[in-house]
Amino acid sequence: MSTNPTTVTAPEGLPYIDVVRELDAPVALVYRAFTEPDLVRRWLGPRSLEMELDHYDARSGGSWAYTHRDPEGNGYGFHGSFHSVVENESITQTFEFAGYPGHVSLETVTLEALDGDRTRTRTHAVYQSVEDRDGMVASGMESGLTEGYERMDELLATL
Amino acid sequence: MSTNPTTVTAPEGLPYIDVVRELDAPVALVYRAFTEPDLVRRWLGPRSLEMELDHYDARSGGSWAYTHRDPEGNGYGFHGSFHSVVENESITQTFEFAGYPGHVSLETVTLEALDGDRTRTRTHAVYQSVEDRDGMVASGMESGLTEGYERMDELLATL
Repeated sequence: MSTNPTTVTAPEGLPYIDVVRELDAPVALVYRAFTEPDLVRRWLGPRSLEMELDHYDARSGGSWAYTHRDPEGNGYGFHGSFHSVVENESITQTFEFAGYPGHVSLETVTLEALDGDRTRTRTHAVYQSVEDRDGMVASGMESGLTEGYERMDELLATL
Repeated sequence: MSTNPTTVTAPEGLPYIDVVRELDAPVALVYRAFTEPDLVRRWLGPRSLEMELDHYDARSGGSWAYTHRDPEGNGYGFHGSFHSVVENESITQTFEFAGYPGHVSLETVTLEALDGDRTRTRTHAVYQSVEDRDGMVASGMESGLTEGYERMDELLATL
């Protein structure tokens, strides 16, 4: 199983989070993992949370919503819209946590083909304030993200 | 006719543009001007450009696209998606100029009721880089925006 590192950068004084992660699978499979609802629910987020997908319409102009539920039954809702979805290239979407309403981010993930049928994903997330970005970093997103990518590794190995 | 100032702020070193504009009309009318396609086309942008509306589906999870056409017939396309549209309160949407593809911003306009049936709009736009923000400022957006709000003043006076 892959142990590719998940690199998270939060530049001082700017409202960004940048994530770089390589995957041992070709771009077409990674794209499927990001856009097919039945695949998304199998990797997005930490292992401890079950994803209840409301809708995940991954096309330019579409939207998405899901609830992450912990073992105690507590729900954490997230929703957004897809600005653009370009097959095997990039996905740009908005993101909002229902527990922190009115604070929205804009995230672009870009897929880059590497030698050996591997893929590099680069995510650039922009927040409406540096405080919002700092809050996201403080929420423990890095560990959830790292675990999510490990789940994606496992999923991709089965496709 | 109103001559309320349009205040545009682009903070040094941060990828934001903030716009504050008061309007001599109640929130419900200003909200209509931002969300009803037949009204949007009558004010959004400078006077010299005709707006050809492709679609303008102003609801949470909707999307929009239009082309601004100059007197010589040149077209400038814009498109985005609506993250959230809350009646008489706020609109959060993405924005992309087809002439600068792959560069997206996230814009929230908030409507605030003032005494005397007046409204203050606050727009906070976030760009994916400070360079993108600087490019938008350099494009002359401030004069187009100011003229657009003057057209909105005129439109609101007829509603």
